[in-house]
Amino acid sequence: VTLRILVAGQGAWGRALAGLARSAGCKVETWVRGQVVPPGRFAGMIVAVPAQAVRAVLAIMAGLDCDTIILAAKGIENGSQLLMPDVARLVFPLGRILVLSGPSFADDVAKGLPTAVTLAADSMKDAAAWAQILSQSNFRIYASDDVRGVALGGALKNVLAIASGISDGKGLGESARAALTARGFAELRRLGLAMGARSETLMGLSGLGDLLLTCGGGQSRNYSLGFRLGSGQSLQSALAAARGVVEGALTAHVAHELAHVHQVDMPIVAAVAGIIHKGLVPDQAIAELLDRPVGPEID
Amino acid sequence: VTLRILVAGQGAWGRALAGLARSAGCKVETWVRGQVVPPGRFAGMIVAVPAQAVRAVLAIMAGLDCDTIILAAKGIENGSQLLMPDVARLVFPLGRILVLSGPSFADDVAKGLPTAVTLAADSMKDAAAWAQILSQSNFRIYASDDVRGVALGGALKNVLAIASGISDGKGLGESARAALTARGFAELRRLGLAMGARSETLMGLSGLGDLLLTCGGGQSRNYSLGFRLGSGQSLQSALAAARGVVEGALTAHVAHELAHVHQVDMPIVAAVAGIIHKGLVPDQAIAELLDRPVGPEID
Repeated sequence: VTLRILVAGQGAWGRALAGLARSAGCKVETWVRGQVVPPGRFAGMIVAVPAQAVRAVLAIMAGLDCDTIILAAKGIENGSQLLMPDVARLVFPLGRILVLSGPSFADDVAKGLPTAVTLAADSMKDAAAWAQILSQSNFRIYASDDVRGVALGGALKNVLAIASGISDGKGLGESARAALTARGFAELRRLGLAMGARSETLMGLSGLGDLLLTCGGGQSRNYSLGFRLGSGQSLQSALAAARGVVEGALTAHVAHELAHVHQVDMPIVAAVAGIIHKGLVPDQAIAELLDRPVGPEID
Repeated sequence: VTLRILVAGQGAWGRALAGLARSAGCKVETWVRGQVVPPGRFAGMIVAVPAQAVRAVLAIMAGLDCDTIILAAKGIENGSQLLMPDVARLVFPLGRILVLSGPSFADDVAKGLPTAVTLAADSMKDAAAWAQILSQSNFRIYASDDVRGVALGGALKNVLAIASGISDGKGLGESARAALTARGFAELRRLGLAMGARSETLMGLSGLGDLLLTCGGGQSRNYSLGFRLGSGQSLQSALAAARGVVEGALTAHVAHELAHVHQVDMPIVAAVAGIIHKGLVPDQAIAELLDRPVGPEID
């Protein structure tokens, strides 16, 4: 049976995923905003639009004949503080909601370089079935039933990538960035656990793996935004220079709010939120981070 | 009171640590092999020699009037399979044995760039006291009482850095390296837990933090060795091109043995050990790793 798949969104990631699904033998159609909702039955819809657009796009797609939604957007909805799968459930309450996330630059995937990601569904059976359908020798998909954990890792790492970029933009060195990333992972983990994610998910490809990629990489828009800020550019000009949506800049504030709601200590996320949303100067934020008392290293 | 400190070993790391201790206000003397053991009482000795030389150097130092040993060597002793603090305890059974480890390139430290590391002792009080003595605004030392955990992280990350270098040398891309590093961390964690390390230590600066630095960095000799191997150089010429001791090449085999002893799955470490010690070709090792069955992502 050839499965008919709709890919909503045709940015770099949407195009890469459409290409992957085609190579996997699916019949792939694509959709972008402004087009009509395609008729007929689909086995699944891959949603590769910016996180803050997911609700609107799914609302448009509410009439689509499809009960499997694979979310490839990474972020937390502003205002509602909802994770992507929670947003999707509002629109498709009876649908099977899956989350695809992990360390994967669209360019690497498009070039056929080896990539490994995680696909989560409420039921391991669904996750494993779709992982099987979409996996290829160079694009390995691991199944998980921790939907929240996979969604959270992908969202929070973007905020931390801005911090890594700032550190590099300021020329603080590789040792500083490694320490910052490790401490950032501890923050991601604290909030994730408080919000019901599983520890092993946060340490896996979609948590730690994606964090490493985004915090280290010149291909990341979040890292690049931070790099420009660290180099002394104003927030306005750094945002203007970004190509496409910088998810981390949109997630920083809501992540900071969630840290408060769940009463977890997230000084790096607070610093990024302060820089993006309150006009805090990077030098001041860094000085405050370095000024925290030295004591026992606790997670 | 001005503390008198001996720094044994004057490679890049030994010189950086001597400089730090001087800036911290200690009276620092240095020692290299061939010199006589200095007379008089020392408050502490920092040991910054290659891991495989620690036993011999400590044996020479057995007569030193000093009961605090701060180990800055990262590795596992070949043959005995002992961690550095266990080696040190054989020579100084009544001494206070501390382990200093974390993400810190000697060059970054020498330049005064911000760095954060962990210092572990059996008693938190000793760890905190020495962290206080040696900490500076740009070299932050966190205290821990998980000596095994801190020693293990520093040793295993060198092996995994070789794997990261191979991936980059082969041009497999940033996504592949991030997945490899995350899966490598899972291996480090599995063996660490089996050997009595604490989970939070492995996720901290001396585990994850140091892994990130070494796996990402051109300043790492372990990564560079891997990069040369991945680029197609023979093991012999890649080792010949290395400046100084490549700890990971010496630890790969013993880490692989320990995985077997503790019955934990470490496919990346096995691949590196195979390449270094059994003449396995990187392409073959990579193919085997990519060929592992895709299933649930488990830690």
